Amino acid sequence: MKAIEKYVEAHKDRFIAELLAFLRIPSISANKEHVPDMKKAALFLEEALLKAGCDKVDVLPTAGHPLVYAEKQVSPDLPTILVYGHYDVQPSDPDSLWKTPPFEPTIRNGNIYARGACDDKGQVYLHIKALEAMVAADALACNVKFLIEGEEEIGSPHVTSFMKDSANADLLACDVVLVSDMSMPAMDQPVIPISLRGVVMIKISIEGPNRDLHSGVYGGGVANPLHALVSLLAMLRDDHNRVTIPDFYRDVKTYTDEERAFFNQKPFDLASYQKDLGIAEVVGEQGYNTLERTSIRPTLEINGVWGGATMPKTVLPSKAYAIVSMRLVANQDHEMIVERCEAYIETLAARLPALKGTQVRVERVPGGSDAFALPTDAKAIQAVRQAFQKAWGGKPPILVGEGGSIPLLTSFQQHVSKEIAPLGFGLDDDNIHSPNEKFGVQNYLKGIQTVCAFHHAYLNRC
Amino acid sequence: MKAIEKYVEAHKDRFIAELLAFLRIPSISANKEHVPDMKKAALFLEEALLKAGCDKVDVLPTAGHPLVYAEKQVSPDLPTILVYGHYDVQPSDPDSLWKTPPFEPTIRNGNIYARGACDDKGQVYLHIKALEAMVAADALACNVKFLIEGEEEIGSPHVTSFMKDSANADLLACDVVLVSDMSMPAMDQPVIPISLRGVVMIKISIEGPNRDLHSGVYGGGVANPLHALVSLLAMLRDDHNRVTIPDFYRDVKTYTDEERAFFNQKPFDLASYQKDLGIAEVVGEQGYNTLERTSIRPTLEINGVWGGATMPKTVLPSKAYAIVSMRLVANQDHEMIVERCEAYIETLAARLPALKGTQVRVERVPGGSDAFALPTDAKAIQAVRQAFQKAWGGKPPILVGEGGSIPLLTSFQQHVSKEIAPLGFGLDDDNIHSPNEKFGVQNYLKGIQTVCAFHHAYLNRC
Repeated sequence: MKAIEKYVEAHKDRFIAELLAFLRIPSISANKEHVPDMKKAALFLEEALLKAGCDKVDVLPTAGHPLVYAEKQVSPDLPTILVYGHYDVQPSDPDSLWKTPPFEPTIRNGNIYARGACDDKGQVYLHIKALEAMVAADALACNVKFLIEGEEEIGSPHVTSFMKDSANADLLACDVVLVSDMSMPAMDQPVIPISLRGVVMIKISIEGPNRDLHSGVYGGGVANPLHALVSLLAMLRDDHNRVTIPDFYRDVKTYTDEERAFFNQKPFDLASYQKDLGIAEVVGEQGYNTLERTSIRPTLEINGVWGGATMPKTVLPSKAYAIVSMRLVANQDHEMIVERCEAYIETLAARLPALKGTQVRVERVPGGSDAFALPTDAKAIQAVRQAFQKAWGGKPPILVGEGGSIPLLTSFQQHVSKEIAPLGFGLDDDNIHSPNEKFGVQNYLKGIQTVCAFHHAYLNRC
Repeated sequence: MKAIEKYVEAHKDRFIAELLAFLRIPSISANKEHVPDMKKAALFLEEALLKAGCDKVDVLPTAGHPLVYAEKQVSPDLPTILVYGHYDVQPSDPDSLWKTPPFEPTIRNGNIYARGACDDKGQVYLHIKALEAMVAADALACNVKFLIEGEEEIGSPHVTSFMKDSANADLLACDVVLVSDMSMPAMDQPVIPISLRGVVMIKISIEGPNRDLHSGVYGGGVANPLHALVSLLAMLRDDHNRVTIPDFYRDVKTYTDEERAFFNQKPFDLASYQKDLGIAEVVGEQGYNTLERTSIRPTLEINGVWGGATMPKTVLPSKAYAIVSMRLVANQDHEMIVERCEAYIETLAARLPALKGTQVRVERVPGGSDAFALPTDAKAIQAVRQAFQKAWGGKPPILVGEGGSIPLLTSFQQHVSKEIAPLGFGLDDDNIHSPNEKFGVQNYLKGIQTVCAFHHAYLNRC
């Protein structure tokens, strides 16, 4: 490990420069105009993986953005680690809220500011640099494979079918899937997420008149789709912040006090949480605290609403839209939930007076997933724990439940390997999916060391 | 009148070409980037007014977009007509819904398609061409003044103070204000609007966390301003399409059955109305029909809502916004209504559980107005009636109540002249404020003739 450490230290400036170059590519998967950038990012990875020492690198076309596959085989007797990550990023809008442009990475106060710095380009690239360091130090402990997709932020519509295809079984054969797409509450408190929420997302479209109308000429006489939409959306939660979809909570796993205590191990200070977010109070489901509300309890969030004017304009719009997502927890079946949601919206559309005279349509956004859970005593979890303790420093890592979703993890468990190693180096306040996303230079460099430590710890456990 | 008719007929191609050139200037008053276009449009008018025969033309600066003033004095013994109109237009977005670009006027099936074609550039320009024709035919019946503003679509923030300023009293001295910013239901059914609704508009902003958050990481634990906004907006109307603001209806003028019959003279066919709008049913306040709901009854309309994502994106947004307007009728005081609305929103913000943890702000959009009403036996109304019958053709004009608002008319009545002559040539389906705005070539040319006929009819009535 000493040789690896020295190598990383000696090459850190180049390692950082390479990541910045990767971050300069605006690989926004949701936006058609960025298709060439998606390809550019995939080819960037291809070259980086080859230079890092992979024997085989392929950019595999899909019906969407390409997958990048790579491997470095050491010996068939050694365990194989498959690294999963994604090179696509969330849209950066509104760009005006960024202190420095989202695709002109800038280092300030020890942090790299750029869209994708943490989620997930920085956390993907550190695995490539870990491979380079282990190869250079002649200290490769396991066989390594990479599967890096370009559609995580749009719900991974193609990678699951790739996994399911038996023709790819050999390619993906491995002992453990290693994922770095997570964060920790503080630099000195590494955490190991052993549960993640599931997610389903829908788009609601409401249509009224066939064109935008003058609200003076027609106002009061024609159904306004915005009134319909807000009336519908307002019904999706009750006054106690509970989701109103019938049977939404039916299958939700309830936890014993002991189990709840476990999920409350994560350091959490309500006052600093509120201060960080600039809010005077937290709100949420009664009977649960903030940590629980955002990990072991499901929720429904309106992610976006749009329709009509965004400046003073007397229009009665033709159409109104909303994006709504639900985060699900253990035992909830995401397919069943989205069906119940659709049925409920249909009922509301028929029942609510404000929806009279409008047409409601619900579309599912591809890529839903059930919640994800790992056994605490898994070999991979032990290796993650050991790697953090050896290379990261700070307090011993704790096991936590997370609020976000990585739909792919369930797919990996089903189709690739039961063993999943969650090894994330981001911080909770890295502003992923928001303006001014960042990733600490130290998180990046120590992440590389910790990945190397994981490879060795995993070999020792096998 | 024969000479005028001949002149218009002989020069119609040029008259059309000039209007198209005027329409090519994207004079969107709401949008700062169009400030140079606003100036260009004002200078275009200045030149056109001079060429048409005005003795005096001034482009008068205001704190916003300039006013264009012009006059053609014939004799102090003759009555003076002041033509009011506006050269600014509504924003054209979404441009993708236009069959031809909004600022590349195109004639199809006898209609000129362009933003502002009907509202109000086409209807302003025809007055200038009417003046040219009357001067050329040596048949000017009255003194003529023009006051053409560039801020009607943003609530006319400066022209009222211009009117109030006693220094401008001589400039604006007139016997009647002639306005062409209205429409009729069909080419063969001219109408004379004798009442218009008032309007007030507000912008509601709701702030939750200080930045956009990941809806997985924070969802369920932090107030979502979009939930707050839809819950608030859903409360502004009840299940019977009545506005819920306390005392909103208190002062509303109620009409006798006889008076209601008067407002129902306007030809209206519900089946064609629904077909035109592509709706299966109309909705609105119980106890009133569509004509009444859109003229003598007040309403509250959500004109726009925005916040968060407009594509699948798991964001819990920091801010959410809405534009809301109210159309008011006779006896409602717009200042009082907006105060009651603000107080009601404040009450709701304190009371509604969905607003806990958020900050609500209400801003008034400048330019509200009370409803406008004219006595049916006014001299100007008689002259409008006569002008339509002489030069427009079709059925005799009928007096109607309109749903839209021209806030300036109340100001004109208060500060310039009690006599207002509403003489509009647009059609109800001209898509003003919507994509594919149009104005019939015949409406334009016959409008010129009808304006000339008005000048003579008004002189005869004096």
